[in-house]
Amino acid sequence: MDKLIGTIKYLIRISENEEILIKKLFKPLQLKSGDYFLEEGQVCRHVGFIEQGLMRYHMNNDGNQKTLYFSKEGGFVCNYQSFLPREPSNTSIQAIEDTALQIISRENLQRLYSEIAEGEKLGRLAIEDVFLSSIQQLKSFYKDSPAARYQLFLQAYPDLAQRIPQYHIASYVGIKPQSLSRIRKKLVAER
Amino acid sequence: MDKLIGTIKYLIRISENEEILIKKLFKPLQLKSGDYFLEEGQVCRHVGFIEQGLMRYHMNNDGNQKTLYFSKEGGFVCNYQSFLPREPSNTSIQAIEDTALQIISRENLQRLYSEIAEGEKLGRLAIEDVFLSSIQQLKSFYKDSPAARYQLFLQAYPDLAQRIPQYHIASYVGIKPQSLSRIRKKLVAER
Repeated sequence: MDKLIGTIKYLIRISENEEILIKKLFKPLQLKSGDYFLEEGQVCRHVGFIEQGLMRYHMNNDGNQKTLYFSKEGGFVCNYQSFLPREPSNTSIQAIEDTALQIISRENLQRLYSEIAEGEKLGRLAIEDVFLSSIQQLKSFYKDSPAARYQLFLQAYPDLAQRIPQYHIASYVGIKPQSLSRIRKKLVAER
Repeated sequence: MDKLIGTIKYLIRISENEEILIKKLFKPLQLKSGDYFLEEGQVCRHVGFIEQGLMRYHMNNDGNQKTLYFSKEGGFVCNYQSFLPREPSNTSIQAIEDTALQIISRENLQRLYSEIAEGEKLGRLAIEDVFLSSIQQLKSFYKDSPAARYQLFLQAYPDLAQRIPQYHIASYVGIKPQSLSRIRKKLVAER
């Protein structure tokens, strides 16, 4: 809970009583590596905050599983495309390490927005942040070559390259693991 | 200004004095068809609301201009990826009809957030809306075939197919105009 409260205090001012309320509105969720926070077809009913661990967003595309992005400790996790309009998700969110989350339901999030003085501001800032990183990553699929995407991945997540299996990185970059292996060798040779 | 005030009142409650303040914080901007609201390389310094008209977001990709989305009257227009972190935009936003906007600067938007009782809520709801439509459209680039993208375009913008030149629609779908022409003929034949 400490990391969540720290993140909230970085974004807005909260009183001691508000801190107590926030702690009541969230509840802990522990996922094992491989467990799902959200599966395709379900409606996303919670926003999560990752205290420790690593998660992967993926979707099916004609039977192929495509990795959209990763989120690690200190980040919020939610498929807003399902959560906001209460529609079934076309994206799954899976823990790829044992992951400790604090989660908040839609109803409690509404309470946070209305009962915390700067609750709406927190909501705006949090969604601005998720928005920026989502757009950036999705635009990259559209714009960049696999080699460029791999280099952007290394820049954006220098610490994650060691934590994420190569086949997930390949799926994120949009290529087969063998092709990723060739790109990596080429990068090493160019150094 | 009426459409903007109507949209704001649909999202939050405002007093008469707040309505007067909002009208002061926005200013009108009139663009001719072809004029730019934002050009690649500039920092996006305003959020706009389209009172009447039609705009196109596009980016350069190895010398090819790719159309990302369209926005019409009643919609907000901004490249948040540039506006929020104050970084040069990699996307241009161009009027493709004569377009009447109401625009607000970063400084005035902060005033709106802090001086209007439900200003932060308005900010959150507006960005949620932009977020959803952006993500949906960008995911489609990743997931759908050109023929599926064209059909989704017709569903999402039934009124726009007549207002947007075919070469812009082809660019949005991600194909050459000749290929779009073939898809359209096939769709007509299947009806």
